[in-house]
Amino acid sequence: MPNRRMLGINVKRLILGIQYDGTPWHGWQTQLSGLTVQDQLELALKKFTQTDIKTSCAGRTDTGVHAIEQVVHFDTIIDRPTASWVRGLNTHLPPSIAVRWVTVACTDFEHEFHARFSARSRVYHYLLYNHPVRSPLWEGKAGWVFRPLDVDRMQEAAQGLIGTHDFTAFRSADCQAKSPVKMMHDIAFVRRGDLIVIKLHANAFLHHMVRNLVGSLIYVGNGSQSVTWLSELLVQKNRHLAAPTFSPHGLYLAKIDYDPKWQLPQAPADAFAGF
Amino acid sequence: MPNRRMLGINVKRLILGIQYDGTPWHGWQTQLSGLTVQDQLELALKKFTQTDIKTSCAGRTDTGVHAIEQVVHFDTIIDRPTASWVRGLNTHLPPSIAVRWVTVACTDFEHEFHARFSARSRVYHYLLYNHPVRSPLWEGKAGWVFRPLDVDRMQEAAQGLIGTHDFTAFRSADCQAKSPVKMMHDIAFVRRGDLIVIKLHANAFLHHMVRNLVGSLIYVGNGSQSVTWLSELLVQKNRHLAAPTFSPHGLYLAKIDYDPKWQLPQAPADAFAGF
Repeated sequence: MPNRRMLGINVKRLILGIQYDGTPWHGWQTQLSGLTVQDQLELALKKFTQTDIKTSCAGRTDTGVHAIEQVVHFDTIIDRPTASWVRGLNTHLPPSIAVRWVTVACTDFEHEFHARFSARSRVYHYLLYNHPVRSPLWEGKAGWVFRPLDVDRMQEAAQGLIGTHDFTAFRSADCQAKSPVKMMHDIAFVRRGDLIVIKLHANAFLHHMVRNLVGSLIYVGNGSQSVTWLSELLVQKNRHLAAPTFSPHGLYLAKIDYDPKWQLPQAPADAFAGF
Repeated sequence: MPNRRMLGINVKRLILGIQYDGTPWHGWQTQLSGLTVQDQLELALKKFTQTDIKTSCAGRTDTGVHAIEQVVHFDTIIDRPTASWVRGLNTHLPPSIAVRWVTVACTDFEHEFHARFSARSRVYHYLLYNHPVRSPLWEGKAGWVFRPLDVDRMQEAAQGLIGTHDFTAFRSADCQAKSPVKMMHDIAFVRRGDLIVIKLHANAFLHHMVRNLVGSLIYVGNGSQSVTWLSELLVQKNRHLAAPTFSPHGLYLAKIDYDPKWQLPQAPADAFAGF
């Protein structure tokens, strides 16, 4: 692909931070139904610019999965202040989707910025609501676990996942990743009231990997399995031995990590609700 | 009203803790539309017991206002374990409403328990989302303030409201309370990330009082008014001089306080999200 500057036209690459409540949408990726976050964003771009714009995101999210900060880029020759892009797009987006910031990609590097390929690592948060009775206030926004969870046990079990591992045991059958080997940088747990927040940081995630890991961590936390179980599952590499895929409702794409040279105006990952 | 025991039949007074997301409902109180929390609860009671049951609540909430723990009572001759009431009613309630606990009222006191008249005081929480851009994840669940708020200023301004005051300046025209004089026990502020939680504890609240107070506190927090403004408004007793009624979306009925003799299995007010 020729560098845009070589084309000699004034094309800019814009980078956006997007937040969404995934409850009403069929995931990120465009579908004929139009009921996806990408479709809604591209519809807003069409209304705002009167041109067709195709977007690329850092991490595709499934039906019902939320984003605290998804990162998206697209190319355009339209020249407006970044604050005008934010306000204009938000006017045309539904309440469940918002553009949080817009910036123009730096062009003085060998490679162009790409929302997905420039990403160094990703952070997902999983919110568990741990109480004997379901909570209407967390409906669609947290996974409900009615049996008491021992977070210390879950934390101990999660230590066996840190580092570079073959995560085949936690990969969906539909996963299209070239390799099941990923590097898990950290898994942290925060309990606050009846909520448990699990923060997972890895270079990349396989399809359903967080929901599969959370499902198995719950089996350790409720005492159904031993604290060494997740390490054993890693070695066995058999999806059928692990726990079922847990609910999408508590899953949040929290942060995409990039080299600071790109100077993205990203929010701290804990700005949302202080998690 | 004769004491139920005098009637010589085995009528029990059941007390319920109810949580709800007020977004889809036209407030607590029954309406012909049936689209209220009370209507939905009484419909679930009808389905579960095959009898007509009328309920009384501790604090009526308006359209769009939520409850972390509303308290409700009703009388019945039906005898079932309390856990069965919880499970059975939740089966018939929509996802936005849940019964959190059920207990049988003690009968060995001079007065019967009454959800409203036995209450000693109430706690409301108001959640503010303070960020230049709206947040889809807090849509309907927090009031949005895009100008930066100085919480220290708001805290200082709120001190003038503590104690027994005539709250006419913060009372809606529709308010049916006999007296505008209420005792404000405490107003506390917690900032966590982009969220600000305001916790108001008073013996009772006038109609729209919390939303009116929050609206005026925001004017102090964003620098539009001085820190002494709320004390001045109290003295002036003129609703038109205070700020407009703020959004219902961030308002939560958090806790009803009763004499411990009633032995209600209430949750700590901070169990929900650790606020």
